[in-house]
Amino acid sequence: MMETPKGLRLHIALFGRRNVGKSSLLNALTGQQVSIVSDTPGTTTDPVEKTLEMAPLGPVVFLDTAGLDDAGELGELRTERSLRVMQRADVALLVTEGESWGEHEARIAALLREREIPFAVVQNKADAYPAAPGRAHGPGVLEASVSVIRASARDGLGLAEVRAALERLAPERALHQPPLLSDLLPDKGVLALVVPIDTGAPKGRLILPQVQAIRDSLDGRKLCMVVTEEELPDALGRLRHAPDLVVCDSQVVHKVDRDTPSDIPMTTFSVLMARFKGDLTALAQGAGALTRLTPGDAVLIQEACSHHPQKDDIARVKLPRLLQKLAGGELRIAWSAGKEFPEYDGAYKAVVHCGGCVITRGQMLARLRAAAASGCPMTNYGMAISLAQGVLRRELSPFPDALRAFEAACAHP
Amino acid sequence: MMETPKGLRLHIALFGRRNVGKSSLLNALTGQQVSIVSDTPGTTTDPVEKTLEMAPLGPVVFLDTAGLDDAGELGELRTERSLRVMQRADVALLVTEGESWGEHEARIAALLREREIPFAVVQNKADAYPAAPGRAHGPGVLEASVSVIRASARDGLGLAEVRAALERLAPERALHQPPLLSDLLPDKGVLALVVPIDTGAPKGRLILPQVQAIRDSLDGRKLCMVVTEEELPDALGRLRHAPDLVVCDSQVVHKVDRDTPSDIPMTTFSVLMARFKGDLTALAQGAGALTRLTPGDAVLIQEACSHHPQKDDIARVKLPRLLQKLAGGELRIAWSAGKEFPEYDGAYKAVVHCGGCVITRGQMLARLRAAAASGCPMTNYGMAISLAQGVLRRELSPFPDALRAFEAACAHP
Repeated sequence: MMETPKGLRLHIALFGRRNVGKSSLLNALTGQQVSIVSDTPGTTTDPVEKTLEMAPLGPVVFLDTAGLDDAGELGELRTERSLRVMQRADVALLVTEGESWGEHEARIAALLREREIPFAVVQNKADAYPAAPGRAHGPGVLEASVSVIRASARDGLGLAEVRAALERLAPERALHQPPLLSDLLPDKGVLALVVPIDTGAPKGRLILPQVQAIRDSLDGRKLCMVVTEEELPDALGRLRHAPDLVVCDSQVVHKVDRDTPSDIPMTTFSVLMARFKGDLTALAQGAGALTRLTPGDAVLIQEACSHHPQKDDIARVKLPRLLQKLAGGELRIAWSAGKEFPEYDGAYKAVVHCGGCVITRGQMLARLRAAAASGCPMTNYGMAISLAQGVLRRELSPFPDALRAFEAACAHP
Repeated sequence: MMETPKGLRLHIALFGRRNVGKSSLLNALTGQQVSIVSDTPGTTTDPVEKTLEMAPLGPVVFLDTAGLDDAGELGELRTERSLRVMQRADVALLVTEGESWGEHEARIAALLREREIPFAVVQNKADAYPAAPGRAHGPGVLEASVSVIRASARDGLGLAEVRAALERLAPERALHQPPLLSDLLPDKGVLALVVPIDTGAPKGRLILPQVQAIRDSLDGRKLCMVVTEEELPDALGRLRHAPDLVVCDSQVVHKVDRDTPSDIPMTTFSVLMARFKGDLTALAQGAGALTRLTPGDAVLIQEACSHHPQKDDIARVKLPRLLQKLAGGELRIAWSAGKEFPEYDGAYKAVVHCGGCVITRGQMLARLRAAAASGCPMTNYGMAISLAQGVLRRELSPFPDALRAFEAACAHP
């Protein structure tokens, strides 16, 4: 009923020409051991997403690009679509029919290499193309390090090898995500989690970062006291000793900062998500760049999910107001939303990104890399809000590297 | 991203012949003020479900029976399908074309009355059927108390009246759900919530009753300490005073009972859900009936969601073992699953139902009524487990009426 969030799943892209058997390979890979949890129907530009559990990788999303290589399409459009899928992939399979290898395969392989996405070549339909004995032969153009696996969706040949290759290739960051917060607490430490309820979550629910924080505290065998900002003083009073960490929503950081004695470490969900989902040091540096905004500067506000009415107030109203206050005048603000990202325009003096709870760590890091390559400093919503409220230094204190990067960026000429 | 669970939404069924404009009425009712959150495609036997927010009712589910009245269908099948939808409805709209009223309408109205489902008649397409001035005329067969509203999806006539009628008709139990637990605690009281993590929730998630408990604690301005069963003693040690209530998952009730000093009130999610979703006293009485099972008795194990592999272990393995231990020998066990329920066979000596987190309070109460009418005592999974572990009396202690009902049922000849 409640699935693992997509943002915590390994994303595996399937590439290959039509009729090489991508879909039947996927069914063979997964049908043996899993029930498919859900399909998100693809549009002409989106891949079909299949979320499922797949031993030994755990929860995964397959980005099935079947249909992206329609023969009628121009090569350029095809490439653009493949690139969009690659923006979201942690690892890829390039499926060929037997040992066939042409321009399409060479192009996809080159793009994957360029994007540093680890991949294996799967020579499907091996039953129809009996090979010479010995190791499968890869196309000469590929490095020897790229696994080439002879497989057959029909008779099950090579499927175990494909799964093993996925496990071997999956990047550490995708398989072993760092804890959200439990590493910040001592053994059986006490965490106070401050969750405002006046805005945000629908009736009977908590929002995802809050659920993830409570779950991470349980996984790490910590003691987690959950209260609203109004009850935080009472919670502190009911504990024998001060909590080891206070974590709050950015929307109440001002009050929580005031109510939390200064010797108690305090941070926000936004800072934790920045560390969990991306590169806290780079995002802290990006927050520093906000202190140098001047009237007329261009700023991009970017959201990973395309439909989130609650957040709209933050993105459309609250953030622009705060940023313009920081800049001391009108800014030229642009917005973008969705799982795929635009080319970052070097003209942006800053990109302010949402927490990214719906995208993976790999996807967030790809956005950070792309922004950095275009010379755009990137930070996130919550850190921008905290900066404007003068509490970001305190929030970053549990993370000395990030604090130093922030201070250096503020001092930057 | 995270919607209000369906089990907490008002369920509104739409009845009416084909071509009376049910779908356009629904769009007109909702399109003006909401974005449709999601559609669950119907099959030939399921209604289409539309979940959305609708002022002033809040989160609702429309059960759109469009397609259930195919002309080619036998009257009996049509009735059966309508009845299935009624099992899930809190309130209904019977849509007609202008003032037309025939056998179909009379039959639906009679079934709604029989099931005590409040409803209004909506005379749609009023733009095409100008009426005499004054109040809309209902068919003579209806009680005067049934609202008859002239409406037009096309020009918006009567839509405000339909919304007002829904608000007026919606049963108290659906609009103002009792709190899950916050009424059991004093002002700013401390709750210890014991959540095992070895089974159950997928990576990064908590299961729904746990999320609902934390949210209810926040809504009620309580202080909620969330720990696993291993850390409960540490949590008790870190608090200045004992918590006001300990709530645990039934799977760890044995250990939690042992680790919680006897002067601290303790209960389980199952008992809380029994109270929240149904009638705790009736379910406690049903638990008492389990003490009277003897070998060869028939028992029904019933689950509200049809796909829940984790629960299967409980329903298929753990519960049968416990029940047979209670009975002192083999039982004849039947299973059922899904949102619609079978006629309860009077031969069942007991029905053991899941917690019902995916169905509404109205749906759970309808199941309890139907079971009682067939003479089948009903209880729930967690209470059955607690009974077998000898801790049900303690769990029921915060609820004196339920405890009395349980003890009376145990003493029953």
